[in-house]
Amino acid sequence: MKHVHYDEVVRKEVTEEGAQGVSVRWLISQEDGAPGFYMRRFELAPGGHTPRHSHAWEHEVYILEGTGTVFAAGKEGAFCAGDVIFVPPKEEHYFAAGVDGAAFLCLVPTGAAGCGCALPKRGKKAAK
Amino acid sequence: MKHVHYDEVVRKEVTEEGAQGVSVRWLISQEDGAPGFYMRRFELAPGGHTPRHSHAWEHEVYILEGTGTVFAAGKEGAFCAGDVIFVPPKEEHYFAAGVDGAAFLCLVPTGAAGCGCALPKRGKKAAK
Repeated sequence: MKHVHYDEVVRKEVTEEGAQGVSVRWLISQEDGAPGFYMRRFELAPGGHTPRHSHAWEHEVYILEGTGTVFAAGKEGAFCAGDVIFVPPKEEHYFAAGVDGAAFLCLVPTGAAGCGCALPKRGKKAAK
Repeated sequence: MKHVHYDEVVRKEVTEEGAQGVSVRWLISQEDGAPGFYMRRFELAPGGHTPRHSHAWEHEVYILEGTGTVFAAGKEGAFCAGDVIFVPPKEEHYFAAGVDGAAFLCLVPTGAAGCGCALPKRGKKAAK
């Protein structure tokens, strides 16, 4: 078992092109022996946003705090705490925080790779 | 994309032997075409608890509300909102709420089956 509070997990800035005011904590990852999927907590500063992009893997998202806008399936929608968002593989998407910022869980399969959302390699920093 | 608030998703009582005061909402499941894992929200009444059991799949848990006790890896520990718990496959475990109840996300791989935690079959009620 792993049992920690999220704030015990290191928070790293996301420096992927198109990201602004975004940081991530890898709450459950390959370091923990998770066999199928990983849990990350994203924190967006007021007005912060993730890149507008798509990839081969899905996102399973639960909004923890704040408000903002999600773009997916070709349209924007407002989100608030308690919202659940499933972004299927290959669907273009982004998340943008409102004036108070936002925090959400975003889970991905272990095969996710190739962008700033990807798991940092062992022993290397994910972002400056 | 699927985008709903959690309270729009039907809440079903968990009637598995050993469960008491437990209900579940399948927030993201096979109905949504999730390819690798499913997101559930469990709600425990004050003093409620899940069964003490083990199974072949892992749990990735994020405590949303309340306090309580988790048993895993042969010992008990107190949990509170913001806690992250990874229960590896085959590890005996249970979750018990304190006097104010508790709510948490618990994600499982799509292959999870065989107990009250499993996905209800299409067109059938999961619980009475």
